Amino acid sequence: MTDADIYRQFTWPVRVYWEDTDAGGVVYHTGYLRFMERARSEWLRAVGVQQAELREQQGVMFVLCAAQIDFRRAARLDDLLEVCCTVTERKRASLCFRQEVRDAAGVLVSGVIRVACVDARTFRPQAIPAGLLPLICISE
Amino acid sequence: MTDADIYRQFTWPVRVYWEDTDAGGVVYHTGYLRFMERARSEWLRAVGVQQAELREQQGVMFVLCAAQIDFRRAARLDDLLEVCCTVTERKRASLCFRQEVRDAAGVLVSGVIRVACVDARTFRPQAIPAGLLPLICISE
Amino acid sequence: MTDADIYRQFTWPVRVYWEDTDAGGVVYHTGYLRFMERARSEWLRAVGVQQAELREQQGVMFVLCAAQIDFRRAARLDDLLEVCCTVTERKRASLCFRQEVRDAAGVLVSGVIRVACVDARTFRPQAIPAGLLPLICISE
Amino acid sequence: MTDADIYRQFTWPVRVYWEDTDAGGVVYHTGYLRFMERARSEWLRAVGVQQAELREQQGVMFVLCAAQIDFRRAARLDDLLEVCCTVTERKRASLCFRQEVRDAAGVLVSGVIRVACVDARTFRPQAIPAGLLPLICISE
Repeated sequence: MTDADIYRQFTWPVRVYWEDTDAGGVVYHTGYLRFMERARSEWLRAVGVQQAELREQQGVMFVLCAAQIDFRRAARLDDLLEVCCTVTERKRASLCFRQEVRDAAGVLVSGVIRVACVDARTFRPQAIPAGLLPLICISE
Repeated sequence: MTDADIYRQFTWPVRVYWEDTDAGGVVYHTGYLRFMERARSEWLRAVGVQQAELREQQGVMFVLCAAQIDFRRAARLDDLLEVCCTVTERKRASLCFRQEVRDAAGVLVSGVIRVACVDARTFRPQAIPAGLLPLICISE
Repeated sequence: MTDADIYRQFTWPVRVYWEDTDAGGVVYHTGYLRFMERARSEWLRAVGVQQAELREQQGVMFVLCAAQIDFRRAARLDDLLEVCCTVTERKRASLCFRQEVRDAAGVLVSGVIRVACVDARTFRPQAIPAGLLPLICISE
Repeated sequence: MTDADIYRQFTWPVRVYWEDTDAGGVVYHTGYLRFMERARSEWLRAVGVQQAELREQQGVMFVLCAAQIDFRRAARLDDLLEVCCTVTERKRASLCFRQEVRDAAGVLVSGVIRVACVDARTFRPQAIPAGLLPLICISE
């Protein structure tokens, strides 16, 4: 498995704590979106990008444009999940991800997430820094 | 304006607090989903449904099946927003909502949310209680 | 009741939503701290201070230094609570609040909260802006 | 180092994500309390206790009674923290913890947390299950 493969199929483990659950006894729906962002953040870190640095040194950050989420099955307290993150599209100023939250029995939640690169002050679209582009592998 | 109209175009005010913001200086993306759920909960309350009672007395609750969210513009600390909630589809065991989060200048975030009525223990789909259906008006 | 009295005994209503609860069926413990901060923010707004403006125009903000919280009884989904907020101490660069979260049956959670006024960039202690001090009434 | 030592000085790593921060550019204050609970949950898991099982099989759970927190220095996006958790008192139906959130430069936040063992339905105090007590080592 090459580095490129790792970045194509990035996976991050997430444990469910009390903070993630609601009175229905399961993970509150926004929990899965937070878990997905942790995986995107860790994927960025794995390809060598620190978001805090990106913001301070290059003045840009990534923000959500659109999210399409399917909630199939709920996770519960103490569950150990894995969240995967695959880049499916790379444009000048935006990226599209396919993401899944899974447990041992299969997919719980899946999503398509579009993020834009924006100026950290004005929130106007900004080209993804040139140094970052080659680090981002697209999955077919 | 009749009662039916009120329920067709339900709107709920939301103030942005520190807890809702992130280091980007704006509302963290899951905040808008929480605001949308507050509006759905208050709409249910307005049509006469207490969700805690629904669960204890009828053994059912509503859970998210799918969410499709567009993030156009970000809200900031101290902003006063309004969140609207319109039922666009009413099936035997699910409802579909069109929702918007707005400020004085227009729409910030819009979404299509599908919720299912499920058994509170098994999470299996359950018919929406008969007494509830006539309270739910569909918007064309 | 004079304006001064209002500010001495400031109270803010809070409704409990799904987002606030956990799998124990009650409000997750950090919820009460968020509710207390909403009351402090609304108290500041009531005495004429917008925190976003305070930060942009004067370069200062309030941050938590210490919190001492007693959790006596838990709130549940749909509960309507009131959160009160009384200033018990006013120093050059900090304020101390006594706060309570109550329902119709009495106090659920009580706390003593100390906040410091800090420079918004360096987080170094900063004198509370002179224009703000006269607005803050101390309760005996 | 024996097993007992491990449980006396339990430490858990926590990464700061966007979800944890606020518009002040730092971790929102309730984040540290959530981090502390993650460490307590992982400490329980390390001594062999699954909280979900504890609740289903023995009908008890741990809830917060009191928290005393000192916020000295703030964590920021991307920071890698460690959260430690030491039992300082073990009574029939409650435990007291001393906890710290640290980065490489020292302590950011420290706290004393008291949790009670309660009946999961009535929230009445309940003796800590006999099988659990020997697993809990007290630090002097």
